[in-house]
Amino acid sequence: MEEEVIQTTNRPLILITNDDGIFAKGIRELVKAVKDLGEVWVVAPDKPQSGKGHSVTLDMPLWYSNAKCDEADHAYKCTGTPADCVKMALFRILGRKPDIILSGINHGSNSSINILYSGTMGAAMEGALHQIPSIGFSLLNFTPDADFSTAGKYAHDIVKNVMAMENNQNVCLNVNIPYDEPENIKGIKVTRQCPGEWREDFQKNYHPSNKRPYYWLTGEYRNNAPEATDTDEWALNNGYVSVQPVKVDNTDYEMMQRLQF
Amino acid sequence: MEEEVIQTTNRPLILITNDDGIFAKGIRELVKAVKDLGEVWVVAPDKPQSGKGHSVTLDMPLWYSNAKCDEADHAYKCTGTPADCVKMALFRILGRKPDIILSGINHGSNSSINILYSGTMGAAMEGALHQIPSIGFSLLNFTPDADFSTAGKYAHDIVKNVMAMENNQNVCLNVNIPYDEPENIKGIKVTRQCPGEWREDFQKNYHPSNKRPYYWLTGEYRNNAPEATDTDEWALNNGYVSVQPVKVDNTDYEMMQRLQF
Repeated sequence: MEEEVIQTTNRPLILITNDDGIFAKGIRELVKAVKDLGEVWVVAPDKPQSGKGHSVTLDMPLWYSNAKCDEADHAYKCTGTPADCVKMALFRILGRKPDIILSGINHGSNSSINILYSGTMGAAMEGALHQIPSIGFSLLNFTPDADFSTAGKYAHDIVKNVMAMENNQNVCLNVNIPYDEPENIKGIKVTRQCPGEWREDFQKNYHPSNKRPYYWLTGEYRNNAPEATDTDEWALNNGYVSVQPVKVDNTDYEMMQRLQF
Repeated sequence: MEEEVIQTTNRPLILITNDDGIFAKGIRELVKAVKDLGEVWVVAPDKPQSGKGHSVTLDMPLWYSNAKCDEADHAYKCTGTPADCVKMALFRILGRKPDIILSGINHGSNSSINILYSGTMGAAMEGALHQIPSIGFSLLNFTPDADFSTAGKYAHDIVKNVMAMENNQNVCLNVNIPYDEPENIKGIKVTRQCPGEWREDFQKNYHPSNKRPYYWLTGEYRNNAPEATDTDEWALNNGYVSVQPVKVDNTDYEMMQRLQF
């Protein structure tokens, strides 16, 4: 029952995960998009993990096993969160440090504050914590059979570009891609996280038998900087692919100067 | 079976949640510590939610019901994550916007990069997204029956201080408190998030029946800035309460200037 340790080659090592689970179309499209750039290992959740943010599993064991993932060189499914999958890959499955970690392509946007809730970006940020360049990709269409062909082309070019950068170990990117024909996409914009919030409207309904009320999280996004032209929201609303560089240090340095206790 | 909507008074409204669950000692100690500062409403997870970060529940309904929480004016337990609890409180339970949101007191540290995994701080950051001053408190002792008396005193003073600040709507703090006698604590330091990482060492074991290997997440923390004297790790290791101001915008503005696509 022992798992087999498989050696990597000397090609650039690309680790891919996601939060929609290993059976989602988006991760298969990402594998296809970048497989010419290196040896592709997939370690992805065995079930959907949307909204899991950077959460990790502390209170129960994790399992992983071989899986198929289209054209990946090697693939494993794991019972944990996206961040768990990255840890499992780095410390148990891969024989060496990957050259880059990719997450996605997510079915749906992770722009603005959605990055905080995003399992896709939780995985990318986990990579950044280990000084590995990491990129999360998200397509602005959440349907299971969305067309990822344009997104795949942009993903390929961005990955190639980041892999070629010198001193890229601190590069962590939140890439969101409009759902449109390639000729309608104007290019790539480097952006900042748009300030915003979800005005929640828990949908209330009743248990079919005991009639106890339950609540299902839903809501409406509000852009709190609608005039700004340097945000990810602006870029996406104006036909650009948005690339937000991300830091794992969330210290408010300005506030640090003025707080006194 | 309809839940009752209870009116708030005109006193300052304090919402308290945590990630150890409503039955943990730490949340009860926090209620006691701040109850003289306003009307205290508790909306907390009905079970432990450690390591849940800023995750939210998208794929199933949530439930809440009345609970007891020592000296809180009103208390509810909720089936969701800490961030879910804040959303439920703001949009379904409370009749008005709270004056401050508190999370904790966590049993165990949330310093350095642990803030990214922390359900305690996920709840606080959810408050910050809605422009409500929010503070997460953590005690450097994870035992269920830890002594919270010193932590409670510091929590009281910090909450009082933040409630008295003008324009405090963007104040979000990650407060970590050494586990020591009050006379050994040297005071409060405003700090930055210490760069660090977990060198994971998944503990491997075998299913008792089918002998399949499983993995339990564990690891050793490594401080990547051991010489720095302005970090939360330095403060805690030198006998200070650490107060890290937190931003929800994780854009890397420096990288934004030098990235080109």
